[in-house]
Amino acid sequence: MNYPFSHALTHAKPSFIREILKMISDPEIISFGGGLPDAQLFPNKEIEQATQLAFSNYGQSLYQYSNTEGFLPLRTWLAERFSKQSNCQINPSQVLIVSGSQQALDLLGKVFLDNGDGVAIESPSYLGAIQAFKLFNPVLHEIDSGSEDDKQDNNSNLTDGINLNKLRTALQQDDNKFFYGIPNFQNPTGISYSKEKRQELANMLKEVDGLMIEDDPYGDIRFGDDKPTSVYSLAPDNVVYLSSFSKIFAPSFRLGWVVAPQEIIDKMVIAKQATDLHSNFFAQAILYEYLTNFDIDSHIQSIRLSYQNKRDVMVQAIEQYMPDDVQVFPNEGGMFLWIQIPNINAFELLDTAIKHKVAYVPGETFSTLGKYQDQIRLNYTGQSTEEIVQGIKNLAKAVKEYRKDSKVA
Amino acid sequence: MNYPFSHALTHAKPSFIREILKMISDPEIISFGGGLPDAQLFPNKEIEQATQLAFSNYGQSLYQYSNTEGFLPLRTWLAERFSKQSNCQINPSQVLIVSGSQQALDLLGKVFLDNGDGVAIESPSYLGAIQAFKLFNPVLHEIDSGSEDDKQDNNSNLTDGINLNKLRTALQQDDNKFFYGIPNFQNPTGISYSKEKRQELANMLKEVDGLMIEDDPYGDIRFGDDKPTSVYSLAPDNVVYLSSFSKIFAPSFRLGWVVAPQEIIDKMVIAKQATDLHSNFFAQAILYEYLTNFDIDSHIQSIRLSYQNKRDVMVQAIEQYMPDDVQVFPNEGGMFLWIQIPNINAFELLDTAIKHKVAYVPGETFSTLGKYQDQIRLNYTGQSTEEIVQGIKNLAKAVKEYRKDSKVA
Repeated sequence: MNYPFSHALTHAKPSFIREILKMISDPEIISFGGGLPDAQLFPNKEIEQATQLAFSNYGQSLYQYSNTEGFLPLRTWLAERFSKQSNCQINPSQVLIVSGSQQALDLLGKVFLDNGDGVAIESPSYLGAIQAFKLFNPVLHEIDSGSEDDKQDNNSNLTDGINLNKLRTALQQDDNKFFYGIPNFQNPTGISYSKEKRQELANMLKEVDGLMIEDDPYGDIRFGDDKPTSVYSLAPDNVVYLSSFSKIFAPSFRLGWVVAPQEIIDKMVIAKQATDLHSNFFAQAILYEYLTNFDIDSHIQSIRLSYQNKRDVMVQAIEQYMPDDVQVFPNEGGMFLWIQIPNINAFELLDTAIKHKVAYVPGETFSTLGKYQDQIRLNYTGQSTEEIVQGIKNLAKAVKEYRKDSKVA
Repeated sequence: MNYPFSHALTHAKPSFIREILKMISDPEIISFGGGLPDAQLFPNKEIEQATQLAFSNYGQSLYQYSNTEGFLPLRTWLAERFSKQSNCQINPSQVLIVSGSQQALDLLGKVFLDNGDGVAIESPSYLGAIQAFKLFNPVLHEIDSGSEDDKQDNNSNLTDGINLNKLRTALQQDDNKFFYGIPNFQNPTGISYSKEKRQELANMLKEVDGLMIEDDPYGDIRFGDDKPTSVYSLAPDNVVYLSSFSKIFAPSFRLGWVVAPQEIIDKMVIAKQATDLHSNFFAQAILYEYLTNFDIDSHIQSIRLSYQNKRDVMVQAIEQYMPDDVQVFPNEGGMFLWIQIPNINAFELLDTAIKHKVAYVPGETFSTLGKYQDQIRLNYTGQSTEEIVQGIKNLAKAVKEYRKDSKVA
């Protein structure tokens, strides 16, 4: 029979990244395409011990239905940590546990978006957010990056984060319900907002009564010393803050968290109740035992050192092996490096790259406007340092071959 | 600031059942209001052993991101079991693992519903399904129960399941995208479709090109011998079948599953990718180790015997203590008993009941049309047999007091 699919799903396509990753079944291909944390760093021994503690401490309640908001001791732990780190005071009732921060994006779509509503996003932006919002048939407005007085739309703008003048205009238009941005070590570009830009953004949000979704999965994976100021802490009535345990604990547990004004949390709880009742309680209890019996800060520090080393190795390999005109964008944390390879089309190059046993995600994938055709995203956390060097060597060969063929043609 | 909530969330209210359960903080109150499985029956020792096996067998992959469709060995196990039990042949690719079967309802809303689309539901129906669909702003059409030639709308109709003539009319209207029903031991009424009704329903779906969502969380919790025929097995192109491990394993794990035509599964996978990437893989691996190393059928049998005994105790207590005019609807499985108490308003009675230390959910809660004002849902799985008897005694006192007061007034 002909199934009567909804408008959104009639038009939705499988994630390109997902399809790329599936396509690359050849184990010899070095893939910089995914966004996987380094599995060697998962704290398996500590999780096993935390699980034993959960078995001993919770009895049969470990297996029963639980409440939609999440495990209260875990929310209290998060409220205290966030208040301390962000130098503000939030209540545990303002913390919602979600099934990965991807779920927060889905719930926020439900809470805010009607058909045809506008959403302002960074250019380029996280593909998973675009996909989550698209289920609610919004109009996505991709906002350029760049300094406020910069009127040009060139690539160097990327280094400076969102263009606040353009964002202000977008938010003052009635139909933009919120702005979605990733101020720390963005996916896909790896770049961060400056301290000044955060403060200006917070002021602007207050001024125009604007709402921001501040997605922060990578804030802890920083290579510098200072925890960057959250926009939430500068404008707590105007920001919904999202974070996750996927990058610092274990993605398979699907546990993320939201901090937001109480009124928004209350609506998200109603939406979550209808969406999945509550997040896995067994996993929440084990995570809580881990957090209160082990030292997550020293675990995070070991992740930082490992990823910083991998980032360094990748940047050095690019400088050593790639053509001189390749530009590496600044990166002080997170999991991705963004590079520009002038005079290539990254989709076309991908075929040659795969022939040379290396894969990446074309920059165009992260734009709703087809921008960034000569730019690519490289993940440096999922491969060993040896594989990183070999993969970049392979990519350099692919670029040379592609450019030679282009000239001939 | 004034937050720009969506239409659905501006109008959504917190679940009444949730609010009732919160209200009843008094531990002396015997609550028949919830829908909790008996925590004493969770297979804790076996889960602990299955967890150890997962630690030994999966290495660091136990903690990594996984695929959206779910753990393939688990889907294969389910496909084989379902094919055998339903006497049909399905492929593992037709099985989707979801974060509780509640999530399947959300995904189906995304896959099928546009603003204002119609959905046909049973009268009364599962509140969680109504809430899940409502996020997509549908028009819900509540279809009477009763035999096909019965034109009257009286309560005895409930005993016979959905009225197929009325359903046929509803599905032939363009705007009803699907029919949502629970053929086995329905929540809230506990009643089941007859074998003949299933066959007629399947034939009718094929005839009118109709789509059914067949929700089956309770099918294994049957007190009779025969596994009831699924509507899916009788019309596999026209049915999306949902089930869950919450009632036969552990609700805290939030693991349910879907069997559907491949084209529908493919769309659900796209929606799930955007919704939560994938369900908790740690929990899926433990569940798979449990299923392949322990005997779930003998575990299910022990749940059946326990719940059947509790059902018997509740029915006997009602016969012994409640007024003679109280009607108990037939129940051969599941977790709920539905009763009619003539000449009461179940919402008003609830105040008196709580004073007498007993709680339930008024029947009206399960109707979008305000029906079933003199009917209530009683859960018999969450309390001990002693508590069941005491709770029914309390309820009987409350009814007598309420009726006396009503006469006076």
